[in-house]
Amino acid sequence: MTAKERSIARTERIAVRAGVATPGLRALPEEVPVALSFGGTTQAVMMATPQDLEDFGVGFALSEAIVRSADDIASLEIVEADQGFDVQMQLAGDLQFAYSARRRKMAGPVGCGLCGIESIEEALRQLPDRDAVDIRFSHDDIRDAVRSLSMHQDLRAQTGAVHAAGFYRPGSGVACVREDVGRHNALDKLIGALAREGSSPADGAFVITSRVSVDMVQKAVIAGAGLLIAVSAPTALAVRTAEAAGLTLVGIARSVDFEIFTRPDRIVQGAQSDVA
Amino acid sequence: MTAKERSIARTERIAVRAGVATPGLRALPEEVPVALSFGGTTQAVMMATPQDLEDFGVGFALSEAIVRSADDIASLEIVEADQGFDVQMQLAGDLQFAYSARRRKMAGPVGCGLCGIESIEEALRQLPDRDAVDIRFSHDDIRDAVRSLSMHQDLRAQTGAVHAAGFYRPGSGVACVREDVGRHNALDKLIGALAREGSSPADGAFVITSRVSVDMVQKAVIAGAGLLIAVSAPTALAVRTAEAAGLTLVGIARSVDFEIFTRPDRIVQGAQSDVA
Repeated sequence: MTAKERSIARTERIAVRAGVATPGLRALPEEVPVALSFGGTTQAVMMATPQDLEDFGVGFALSEAIVRSADDIASLEIVEADQGFDVQMQLAGDLQFAYSARRRKMAGPVGCGLCGIESIEEALRQLPDRDAVDIRFSHDDIRDAVRSLSMHQDLRAQTGAVHAAGFYRPGSGVACVREDVGRHNALDKLIGALAREGSSPADGAFVITSRVSVDMVQKAVIAGAGLLIAVSAPTALAVRTAEAAGLTLVGIARSVDFEIFTRPDRIVQGAQSDVA
Repeated sequence: MTAKERSIARTERIAVRAGVATPGLRALPEEVPVALSFGGTTQAVMMATPQDLEDFGVGFALSEAIVRSADDIASLEIVEADQGFDVQMQLAGDLQFAYSARRRKMAGPVGCGLCGIESIEEALRQLPDRDAVDIRFSHDDIRDAVRSLSMHQDLRAQTGAVHAAGFYRPGSGVACVREDVGRHNALDKLIGALAREGSSPADGAFVITSRVSVDMVQKAVIAGAGLLIAVSAPTALAVRTAEAAGLTLVGIARSVDFEIFTRPDRIVQGAQSDVA
């Protein structure tokens, strides 16, 4: 069974349309527990869609600052567990030693970086400064990114109810898309996919289908992106966090309209050709 | 500042409409770290909307099976922390002792019950059986529940980007609604609100604006509901879990149409008057 087949389940259900109940099958996204382990120690278990798990492992390791590049992961193996999967990673060189030492000091697993943490200070973690990311996007770029993402949501087209995160390069459209029932997972998968292929997030924009809670900003900033575009709205804390980190945050991006919440200097009016 | 005022932030942003950029203010939902503590020990920190935090504390304690009823919480105090809030609960009688003993054995905090857990088995926890919940809902009830919920989403009307969970009683509409940037939090707040007012979830249906991942089913089942109605689609695992627990799961409930995924025997055709 391919990863794609694993991600879609055909489920019996009764559809009620205009008052008429009809039994039949519907495709639904699959959701399974996925453990993320380093050197044999499980860091977290996430409920995720079981495709692109290699990308998920690498992206999670980067987002949680366990590694600084994909090269820091010496090996990665997807092991099928009883009812889910274990993404077993080995860290390169001294990193495994440092990880194990740090792990022993931690109170517990960190999860998505938002829940499962033990202090309020930890929730609002220090972020690198993306003030210097030097890239410009036109209004057309933003519209193009959102439209292009919606055309690449393969799993959503079949099942609905899944989020997507894409990477948009001005002039060449959405280059990479990852999908998952969890919006954090979709973005981690995208970050991992880019790291594995050696693409720099600073050369384009992240586009996400979801709302922007602070953790989505944290992941984008840690990955090195200069622009985060979201179809839905941000929280006020997400805006403050993006402002402090020098990230350009665009939200409520639907059809032709959108709103710029932070660092509007990276968004220039007009068509793509004016920018290049 | 009231809790409602705390939950909405007016943020400067540039709106781009039909190519014209106009600066102005927009209301956004607030998101702050909220610690949930029992007898001085923090169980988890969640990013949440800072309203109805008493309900959140009680609902979280019930969903995480730390208590079995609201009466098990001897006291609850909301303490303003540096950048968030601490919901400090004291457990009644022997419960605090049992909690502390169990807490020492745990590897870490449990968060939303999904991430931040350390094993795959733990993710798919055993649930009580709701097979015996004896209540019937008509097609009209389901439509009424969804329509009525949408009319009570006060925070969403002002800010967008927040989820809601409501409790619907056949014949009397949506009696209670709670909102949050996090869909788990919205449901926990609702469960807490019902427990605090002494309402039994078995007497009605939970209605949620979000997709149904397995954890939403887990919370509904633990709270004792017989029916969960969601505006969006469920995951395949959520359907299997609802089936095993005897919960009726209705999804993709929009305007007049909806789909019944499990236990259709609780859904009867026709208008409300046919059921009563």
